[in-house]
Order: sequence, then structure tokens, then C-alpha cells
Amino acid sequence: MSELFVVGIGPGGREDMTLRADRVLSCCDIIVGYRLYVDLVRESYPQKEYIVSDMMREKERCKAALELAAAGKRVALICSGDSGVYGMASLVYELRGLSEKPEIEIVPGVTAALAGGALLGAPLGHDFAVISLSDRLTEWAAIEKRLVCAALSDMVIVLYNPASHARPDCLKRACGVLMRHIPEGRPCAVARNISRRGEKTELLTLGELSSAPADMFCTVFIGSSTTKIINNKLVTPRGYHDV
Amino acid sequence: MSELFVVGIGPGGREDMTLRADRVLSCCDIIVGYRLYVDLVRESYPQKEYIVSDMMREKERCKAALELAAAGKRVALICSGDSGVYGMASLVYELRGLSEKPEIEIVPGVTAALAGGALLGAPLGHDFAVISLSDRLTEWAAIEKRLVCAALSDMVIVLYNPASHARPDCLKRACGVLMRHIPEGRPCAVARNISRRGEKTELLTLGELSSAPADMFCTVFIGSSTTKIINNKLVTPRGYHDV
Repeated sequence: MSELFVVGIGPGGREDMTLRADRVLSCCDIIVGYRLYVDLVRESYPQKEYIVSDMMREKERCKAALELAAAGKRVALICSGDSGVYGMASLVYELRGLSEKPEIEIVPGVTAALAGGALLGAPLGHDFAVISLSDRLTEWAAIEKRLVCAALSDMVIVLYNPASHARPDCLKRACGVLMRHIPEGRPCAVARNISRRGEKTELLTLGELSSAPADMFCTVFIGSSTTKIINNKLVTPRGYHDV
Repeated sequence: MSELFVVGIGPGGREDMTLRADRVLSCCDIIVGYRLYVDLVRESYPQKEYIVSDMMREKERCKAALELAAAGKRVALICSGDSGVYGMASLVYELRGLSEKPEIEIVPGVTAALAGGALLGAPLGHDFAVISLSDRLTEWAAIEKRLVCAALSDMVIVLYNPASHARPDCLKRACGVLMRHIPEGRPCAVARNISRRGEKTELLTLGELSSAPADMFCTVFIGSSTTKIINNKLVTPRGYHDV
């Protein structure tokens, strides 16, 4: 049977990987991935063959993984966090198209919203929206519309890819949009390098967030109207406490 | 040191638990949880002391866990999926308040949106909103507002707690709200008993979803305008394919 595993390795540290992801990486022949993610797992699976590719080579990487799997190799294509959330799972299905080969198994993982939330306290205790600020593949107008709707919905908002070298001002722009609808004193937080070297969290207001430094290793949380800071933790109540 | 671990055990099957959750459950003295979640882990950790409670006893359960941990026991309070997403993490922080004891470690896990998404294909390839339809602790007006905003934002929508014995019509009502803004032919899906006995997925349109049977073991996905069905999988492209 030819099968491709698309594996979410979690935020970075080996302990936040699932048992299934660990089993698949232990049993496969070849691990395919972006350089940075391969660096996160190589130490734990040193005997594997690795195919490493650079950023923005997503299509090439997925095609290689599909071809190797179709040829009978046991291939794991790795993604950080969850393999479905802004990961390679959707592209793999698009590239396979109507073919039945190889079979595809998506192995879910702990995405940054969950791992960052756990570090910060419990910001995702109630409804939330996950929005990427990368305008590499999505027009800024669409991102802005989603930010406005999320702000009006009063859900907690989690921002992925808040900034990068190529788009240093995305987070500032997003905060400008949000502040039209959310008070600038709203509790927010940044989680950096979650579950990796240099892990760090910071609580700040939406106003402060607007001028905070950010990069692609940050995940940003914007509280809802019920989110509060309790003993230095960011907490969105579910409502159990008041029953 | 007194410490309480709030552990997300993933959707159900042991393999979708993280290595960290497994270590914590292996090392703790006492496991506290809702009956159904305890049944999911008891077989893997048979030597532990268990404190089992029924639904709607959330506050009691968290207080017991905090007290046992403060008294020096190694306590794991378990939640299904992620411990922060509609889980006990926020309530634990609220109940501990300004006290420094016990320390709290939140152990994240694979929430149903991710595990269900993996089964269905890759519906969460782009931005998404997670909304609970339970009006036990949230007024229906607030839920409806979030549904409308999420529909207008054109994000994928994941619905938790789509219905229960006490509220059999919630999913139908929600679909009615969504169909004011989303065409009834929009691809949707239901994932049932994810990673547990009786696991099942179903693809259907928003119109069909409106009269589909649902219960608290279902997670519901409503596609965005770009979500499509490829070879029986629900896929929301990120945009890589068209670069």
C-alpha cells in the first residue's frame, strides 16, 4: 500500500508531539519538510532519510512527497503545529486531485493557538477566530474584512504570521483596524518561540500591541470583552464560575 | 512543590494524546475528571486513584483538584481535546484567583476541530472560527451574533456542541442564521465520535446540515467560499497551489 502521512509535529518541543506523530516518524522511511521543521525533529529520528526544502517551495515539497509515496516509500511530510492549519494538508489533497494513489493520512497536532494559549493561561476558554496576517497568498482586503468581523463578533482572536521581514508592519496595520472596534485597553498577549529555545510570553494592551515588535515566530492573542488578567494569566471565562 | 496539571487528552484515542500528557498521567497520583473522559484513559493508567464526577459539576471538580494539589498530591485534571478550548483551564484560574498555590501547568491537546479536520481532509487550511452552540452558559443572542459575523467574514466555521438532549434544535437554528448569509449549497461536514468507537464522517451541504441529526459527540464544519470537495475530502486551499 502506498501512503503519505502529513504529520503535525506540534509547536516544536518533542513532548508536545502526539504519540501517533511519534509512531509515524519512527516507522517511516523518509521525512520531508521545510528546513526549520526538519531541524526540530532530526535529533529524535537520526536514522531517517531527510528531504529538506526552503520556504516558499511548498508545491515542490508536496509533489516530491506524493511521488515518493506513490512509488512505495513510507513518507512523512512534516508541518509545525497542526498539519491542517495553514499546513501542507490542503495542498497535498489539491495536488493529488482525483488520483487514488497514494493514500493520505493526516496526523493532527497541537497548533500554536493551543500551545500558546496554554503558556499564557486560558485565553481560548470561549469562542475564538484564527486569522493569518500573511498577505503573501491572501489579499490584505480579505484579511482586513475578517479582522473587522472577528472584532464585531466579540470572539477572542488569534493571529498567526503577525509579521515577517517582507511585511514588517502587518501587526501594526491589523491593530489599527481592530482598534476601530475594540478599546485599546483590551488585554492581549504575544507568545514567542512556543515550546522552543527562547520561549517567551508577554501580556500587553491592544494599544501597546500595535507598536510591539513581532516576527513569524510569534502568535498573538487579542482578548474578547470578557477576557481578563488573573494573576498574570490571560483568561477567557466559559461561564462555569458564575453558575 | 504543589502543582496541578490541567491535561488535554486529545479527542479520545490514546494515540492522539501528546507525549507530555502521557508523561503527566503516568507520573501523577490522582486523575480527576468527568466520567466519560475518565473512561477514555482508565485502561492506560490502571494504577491511579480516580476522582470521577458527572456533567455540570465543573466547579466542584476543579475545586477538588485544586485542593488536592495544594495539599501536596500530584493531580491531573483531565479534559477531552485541548484543556483550554471550552475546557477546565479557565475555570481553574478563576477559582485559584490571586493565590500562588498550587502552581498550574496547562498541558495542551489536539482539539476536535483539528482531529475532525484531519479525518475530513483539510478544511482548516485557511482562517477559521470556533463557536460553541451550547446556550447553557451563553445567551443565544450572543451565539447568533457570532454566527452572523463568522458568516460575513467568509472564514470556515467549526461548531462545537451542536446539539444535546436538552437543546435538540440548536444546529437547525444555527443553520437558519447562517443561510441568511451563506448559500445553502455550501460544502459542510459532520465528524462524529472522533478517534473513538463509532467514528464516522459525513459530507453534506449547508441546506442538508440543517436537518441532519446531531448530538454532543459531533463536530460540525461549514466551509468558506473557497472550500471544495476533492475526491470525497473537504479542502480549504491556502493558496499555494495557484502560485
